[in-house]
Order: sequence, then C-alpha cells, then structure tokens
Amino acid sequence: MRIVQKFGGTSVGSIERIRETAKIVCKELEAGSEVAVVVSAMSGETNRLLALANDMSSCPTPREVDALVATGEQVSAALLAIELNNLGVKAYSFSGGQAGFKTEGNHSRARIRDVQSDHLITLMQKGEVPVVTGFQGINELGHVTTLGRGGSDTSAVALAVAVKADVCDIYTDVDGIYTTDPRIEPKARKMDNISYEEMLEFASLGAKVLQTRSVELGMRYNMPIHLRSSFNLIEGTRVSREDSNMERAEISGVAYNRDEAKVTIKGIPDQPGIAASVLGPVAQADINVDVIVQNISEDGLTDLTFTVPRNDYAATLEVLNALSQELNARQVSGDDKVAKISIIGVGMRSHSGVARKMFEVLAKENINIQMITTSEIKVTVVIEEKYVELAVRSLHEAFGLEAEA
Amino acid sequence: MRIVQKFGGTSVGSIERIRETAKIVCKELEAGSEVAVVVSAMSGETNRLLALANDMSSCPTPREVDALVATGEQVSAALLAIELNNLGVKAYSFSGGQAGFKTEGNHSRARIRDVQSDHLITLMQKGEVPVVTGFQGINELGHVTTLGRGGSDTSAVALAVAVKADVCDIYTDVDGIYTTDPRIEPKARKMDNISYEEMLEFASLGAKVLQTRSVELGMRYNMPIHLRSSFNLIEGTRVSREDSNMERAEISGVAYNRDEAKVTIKGIPDQPGIAASVLGPVAQADINVDVIVQNISEDGLTDLTFTVPRNDYAATLEVLNALSQELNARQVSGDDKVAKISIIGVGMRSHSGVARKMFEVLAKENINIQMITTSEIKVTVVIEEKYVELAVRSLHEAFGLEAEA
Repeated sequence: MRIVQKFGGTSVGSIERIRETAKIVCKELEAGSEVAVVVSAMSGETNRLLALANDMSSCPTPREVDALVATGEQVSAALLAIELNNLGVKAYSFSGGQAGFKTEGNHSRARIRDVQSDHLITLMQKGEVPVVTGFQGINELGHVTTLGRGGSDTSAVALAVAVKADVCDIYTDVDGIYTTDPRIEPKARKMDNISYEEMLEFASLGAKVLQTRSVELGMRYNMPIHLRSSFNLIEGTRVSREDSNMERAEISGVAYNRDEAKVTIKGIPDQPGIAASVLGPVAQADINVDVIVQNISEDGLTDLTFTVPRNDYAATLEVLNALSQELNARQVSGDDKVAKISIIGVGMRSHSGVARKMFEVLAKENINIQMITTSEIKVTVVIEEKYVELAVRSLHEAFGLEAEA
Repeated sequence: MRIVQKFGGTSVGSIERIRETAKIVCKELEAGSEVAVVVSAMSGETNRLLALANDMSSCPTPREVDALVATGEQVSAALLAIELNNLGVKAYSFSGGQAGFKTEGNHSRARIRDVQSDHLITLMQKGEVPVVTGFQGINELGHVTTLGRGGSDTSAVALAVAVKADVCDIYTDVDGIYTTDPRIEPKARKMDNISYEEMLEFASLGAKVLQTRSVELGMRYNMPIHLRSSFNLIEGTRVSREDSNMERAEISGVAYNRDEAKVTIKGIPDQPGIAASVLGPVAQADINVDVIVQNISEDGLTDLTFTVPRNDYAATLEVLNALSQELNARQVSGDDKVAKISIIGVGMRSHSGVARKMFEVLAKENINIQMITTSEIKVTVVIEEKYVELAVRSLHEAFGLEAEA
C-alpha cells in the first residue's frame, strides 16, 4: 500500500498533538505501507500571520501575503519531521515548491498546475517519509503561491495522484460523514462509503470537512479519499467512485446550511437577458449566487429571487437597489433568516418520487417551502431558518436513515 | 549610489518598528539610491522557533531545525515588503534560495558559497526593492540551510558584493563603534572610521554589534560597511580599508571581555607535541581556546595555561582531569573570574612602546597581569575580573581616547 496522509491544523496544533500524529504515521509504516504526509499550519497560525499582514496594511500585497502565510505550514512540517526522526523514522520536510507543486493563477487562490514528485517516490520506496506543506506551491515565476483556505486537502489529493498512492487518508477532528448533523439528530449514522458526487453535495452544504476542490480532483483521477479521525483509529468514511455492489439506500443523507439569505427583485421586464443583467453585476461584486428562481411572467414583467451567502446579504441589496433604478423595477426585498435543506443520494437518480416524498414530509410539519432546486443526486429547498432542526429530523426519519438500534 | 541596507531583529521587531524601517528605505530611494534590503527575524522569533524544535525533541534533526528557523526571516521580509508597497514602493520579498544564496557545509552553520543575484540588480535598477531574508540559503541538494547566529550581517555583506553595491549599511540599535564601552567610561567617543582589522578585533571582543564573518567578507572584497543606528539617522562608524590619509591616533580603542575562564595544567613533560596533545582533546570537545601561555621548562617539566569561554569552563576542566592521568601531570587548576582587556589600533604597528605603556598604567593601579598576548594591531592581557572597569578607564585616559570637551 502506498498512502498519502493529510493532517489538519488541530492534528499539528501543539507539540503534544504532533507527537500523536507522528505515532499514526509510524503505525502505517509498521503495517508495511509507503507513506507521504501533507500538513496544514498549526491551528490558529494562518490567522495569526494574516492578522500581522492586515495590521501592516489595509490592503497588503497578495504576493507578500502568500509568502508570509506559507511559513505556517513550513513550521508544522519541520516539527513533524523532527518528531518522526526522533522516533527513528527518516523524514524530511518539503515546502510546496521543494515538493514539486507548480501552480498557476492568482495569489491566495492559485490552482495546482502540476506536481513533479518523483523524488518523493524514491524516498517512500526506501521507507522514508516526505512531510509536505499543504496549501502552497510556486508559480511559473518561482514565487510562493497559496491555494486558498482548506487548500491542504487539495494538496494531499494532488500529491496522492502524483505519487500514484492507493488512497489519500484525510485525518480530521470528525469520524467521517454522517447521514445528517448528529448535533441535531442523535440517531444520525456514520456512512462507510460515499460517492464523490454525494461528497461534493455534502461538502458544498453543511459538512465542511473536506474542500470541494479536493473531492473534484479525487473524482477526476479516481483517487479514493478516506476521511477519518485523528483522535481514534476507527474506520471513517471512504469517498470513491460509485460502486454498483454497494448496497444503496434511496438517499444517503440530509444536509442543511444556515449561511443563507434570499433576495428578490420584483417587476422587472421579462425579456431575454434580464437574468444576466441582474446576476452579472452581483457576480462582479464577487458574490456567489446559489439557488435561483424566476417567476412566471405577468403583464410582461417578472420577479427574480436568489440566495446568497448571509455575509453578502447587505452588499447584494446594495447592488440590487442600484440596479432597480436602471431597470425600473417595482421593488427589492430580502430575508436573511432562511436556510437550505437538501436530501442527497446517488440512488435518487432513478427515483423521481424522492422529491414528492420530501415535500409531503415538510408539509405535514407545516413547513413552507420558499424555493426549490434539484440536481441529479439532490433535492434542495429553502425554508425559514427556525424550522431547520424540525425539518432535518423529520426527513432523516422519513427516509429511514437512522442507525439501527 | 547602490546600497544594501541590513536591518536586525529589533528594527523589524514589531509592526511599528517595521513602519519606521520602511521609512528609512524610502528616504534612501528618495535620495536617488538603488536599494536592496536584508532583514533578520523579528526579535525573539528565532528563539521561539528554536524552543518549539527543542520541545519536540532533545536532539532535533539539523536539517529540519534549519527549515523551521528560516521561516522567521521570511515573515519579517514579507511584512516589510507589504509596508513598502503600502508606501508606493514596488518591493518583493525573497527567501535566501530565491535571492540566489548558495551555501555549503553543515546545517545551522553553513557558509555562503556563491550569491547569484543578477535578477535583483534588474529590480534595483528599476527603482524596485528586493527584501531578502538574511541568515539563510540553499545547499547543493536544494535544502534550506542557515548560517548560524548573526548570519544576517554576513548575508548583507555578501549580497552587497554580489550586486556590486557601493556600501553595505548595517542598521542596529547602537550608534556605532566607540573607543570603549560608554557604560564603563562615559567619555568614550564614537569613531567615524575604523579599519576592517580593527573592527575584527573589536568584534571578537566585547563589541558584538557585527558578526566577525561579515567583517572578514567585507575585507576580502573591499566592501565598505557602515554601522549605524536605526533609531536616528546620524552617521555611524564606517568600516573600510585602512586609509593612509586618515588621521590616526596611536590606538583606536580599549575593548574587554568578561566571558573568560583560565585553566592550567601543571608539570607535564616538556617535549615536542605536548601542547598539541593537551589542546587537541580540548578542540575535539568543541571548546575554543583563546590566549595560550606555555611556561619555561624546569626539570624537563612545563605548565600550560589557556583561556576558554566561561561557559566551557567545567567541560574544559573535565577534559584536562582526564588527560592529567594520561600525561602524569602534577596538577590541574583554573579560575573562572578572569577577564580580557585589549588595546587595539592599526597605528600600533610601528609603536612597540604601546605594550610597555599599557603595562605601566595597569601596574600603577596595582592590577596584576596574568597572561599577555599580542598581535600586529592589538595587545591583550588577562586580569582578575573585578578590575575590568578600573583598567578600562585608566587605559582610555592614558591613551588620550576621550571625547573632546
């Protein structure tokens, strides 16, 4: 077995945690595996460095912020390598550039172009352990670039692909992916297997345990990702290509996201390109639009409603109010107390009845559905935020997701 | 003018200090100079990182300690570059490796082999400012290496040579080099000019303002070093090749060092190679021997006395006690309450009377001289530590070094 192990900020957050992490690496070596490790910065360190940059300037140069922040992972990588050597394992820390990570695109949100890591394979084959800084690489100019928050997951999967690993183990502070949030529904069940597509839906909703880009990368190169806890060594959730042999329930889980706000612009001319002329300026303000609904036209006029991250609510209203004049709209309104509930499952593809069942369950609880959107493996509704817990529990039970007693 | 400016840990020790430092850089640019900057880590940062390594392991891997500690300068370089950009100056931080510093030799005490900085000259000619991390480079394997404590001075002088600068300005928290320690003798006078040779003597004694290696490098390549304060912008002390036009006093200054201990091994056979057989094992224990005196032989036996850093006193006695058996020595003794006093001056070369005058001054104060050593530009004596202040003041006055009233 050849394995890339990724440890997040809490797993390298202190001297003590680094010792525990080193033991996990050793255990894998003792089992006969070839191992490379990817680490995040010690928890809190990235924020500390960013605060320094922001204290220095209200608009710090992106190139320099990247050079600054990248030192966080260099520190944790060196410390883990020290501890591994301490335990008798030959380990070497590598910065992103040293490990062969070539990036392209903007500072602070670069993309991995290529990973040239043959020198790391050579080490791994000798039983030695490269400890690679996540989240960073160098661009075509040789400048340090970072991949954006959570980029270490992406680094790990990219490295796993480059060194032809059998699996990429992502160690984190959760046990795996649950059928829903156990804080809301104690009967939630940890899933042993999940497809890349489902993981993408969970990741883009509440379950922020794995960066979306890392899942996309795993999917593209068919690299299995094993999401597991660094606090215990029990099996977590394996994310892999959908396996026809898997015993599949109709749906896999219920996800929710409170980080939502809804805005509506009413009485705009219903003509080709009107959606673009509203959403264009919103996108230009760097606001991500999610669910979009356009009403049926009446008297040549229409309404457009869409959701945005709650943080961008005020900014979105500002953009729409400006537009409102221009388009001679009747009204701009909004609500920042909404939430999104999704049911997710690859099994759903052939079961269009899933949506109907979802609506019935919510109706029975008197929960009004404000917006609806569907994809091949997901049905999403927007509801009042105060109903989140009730909706999650009702759906979890109705779809039979609970753990067996 | 093309200038390399070096700022130490206190000059980049906080957001506020970095702002002040950036102003100094801007002032030089406004004067029309081309500028490159070399920075140390924020004060305290190197120690913080070393403490992390030592918490991790009692014997941390040198390669990883270097990778860890090198992040300190990367942080301060990025922050200074951010502030310079903030002030409208195009500035770019460079790690040692990025700046072209190639090293050789052991981790944590590597030596600079070559500096390939033509790309920095290109920036400087455009009025842009490279901000380079001191203290580090990469070795032939591409691994990060550090130059040892104070290595940033050496980095700065090496960079000045590489970019063909006119001068290397070393900004520090002192005004320059004084004729003696002003804390002991308030009449001490700041010197405007000093030769490399004299600076080496001052540096290897009390005045730890400039790393010895940086002075040697300046001397070899004839690079003038301007040692000055970052708290005010008055002229400091210029270290350069001895200029026959300089009006030279007989001696330049009086230096002292309390960090001394003296050991004696008595009654060893006076035969060829005996000094080597004593000092060899001491050197092998990584102890630096300084002043050495061998007594005149009596009955075929001799005594050997030498000084070592006070920290190594106990270790030295241990080595000698072990040797004592082997060599059938009569006695091993020592004293760790001694100090070294030196008078220094290139003018001395033709004045052998200087030593005699020094001895007379000390005799008049009833200060006993325990050991004597001389070089072309220095006379050094070892005395009881308690006489340091008296000796310094008497010599400073006798040689007419005081500031004019």
